[in-house]
Amino acid sequence: MYTLYNVKAWGSLVVDCLLAELDARYTIVWMTAEQVKTPEFRKLNPLGLIPALGLADGRTLYESAAIVSYLVAAHPEKRMSPPLGSGAYGEFMSVLHLMSTELYPTISLCFSGSGYAETPEHEAFLTARARERSDGYWRILEQRMSAAGPWLMGQDFSALDLYAFMLSVWGRPSEQEFNHRFPAVAKLASQVRARPRLQPVLQAHGVMSLGGYGS
Amino acid sequence: MYTLYNVKAWGSLVVDCLLAELDARYTIVWMTAEQVKTPEFRKLNPLGLIPALGLADGRTLYESAAIVSYLVAAHPEKRMSPPLGSGAYGEFMSVLHLMSTELYPTISLCFSGSGYAETPEHEAFLTARARERSDGYWRILEQRMSAAGPWLMGQDFSALDLYAFMLSVWGRPSEQEFNHRFPAVAKLASQVRARPRLQPVLQAHGVMSLGGYGS
Repeated sequence: MYTLYNVKAWGSLVVDCLLAELDARYTIVWMTAEQVKTPEFRKLNPLGLIPALGLADGRTLYESAAIVSYLVAAHPEKRMSPPLGSGAYGEFMSVLHLMSTELYPTISLCFSGSGYAETPEHEAFLTARARERSDGYWRILEQRMSAAGPWLMGQDFSALDLYAFMLSVWGRPSEQEFNHRFPAVAKLASQVRARPRLQPVLQAHGVMSLGGYGS
Repeated sequence: MYTLYNVKAWGSLVVDCLLAELDARYTIVWMTAEQVKTPEFRKLNPLGLIPALGLADGRTLYESAAIVSYLVAAHPEKRMSPPLGSGAYGEFMSVLHLMSTELYPTISLCFSGSGYAETPEHEAFLTARARERSDGYWRILEQRMSAAGPWLMGQDFSALDLYAFMLSVWGRPSEQEFNHRFPAVAKLASQVRARPRLQPVLQAHGVMSLGGYGS
């Protein structure tokens, strides 16, 4: 039994989706943005960020891609990644980290400069640069799926696709406009949205249909 | 047999150290900053970043923490991580991602604003904010080791310690000043530097002694 600390359409969306696909038993603690900032929550996750995942042994995990890495390894029979330690698993990890280490922080900078801008002019420059860079990362993913899709690991659906779906929901200036520019990503997102196990999760996060984030 | 694309004291340092600790067979392709930018290298790593690791099956992996995740899973008998899929492995992954997803990109912003600043004033503001934030992440790691060290996984040396060592080598304004402020991290770095298998690697990267980076 896991405990997921969850905020609607935040970084916990991918973990909620993955737990549903794994058919894992878990309870959800729905949080507000204010609750995430409290000292009580920092005792669980020193970063004060969503998601966090409580384990049965009392540990609390943090960082979305770390939790994904843990879950695919803890439930290898569900095949949400290539076999652990295989070359394909290395490739899976590279694409996961492209998304979590390069793309995700860059997307965060697109939202009001994340405190790195002192003036409105700085913010405009910084967020524009961040949007250009995030588009560059998306082009790599788009080309990857155009060459050998429909999923990020080719014919095999994996946890990577849930991660990419989450990031695409945050597409700017709108999810619709974003999807227009990245058709292979849009197709992936549409196919993720159609997965039966995910319907209650998508509904709870308010992202059943395009543009649900921020609406 | 692996092929490591390597630049002195760049992000490949942790991979070089880990391959040495695993006693793995590998060849090194030493690269210059100019070679990293070429279209030829982008065919191997679409991000155009160091490190990249060629596998025997022809794949090329990228992203330092992805390569670390692959290597600990491909060589589980070397125990450079807790057992795959265990709760401790989840914790290992959380700390790895704290370093790769939060701390590493923030350290990058400390170096000339990484293209996100339009004016010298903006750069000064941005790099100062980035240094504050990276110090916040280092405090989490420092407290973790002060509470249960000497390594990041307590009594067990792991790949995390090599990763933290690499990041500490980049400490600003100097490695010495950085080590003074974070004594548990400094102790970890000093113990990593003493490991016999790492001596040739540290020498090749020019980081045998404090302050080797940038000198």
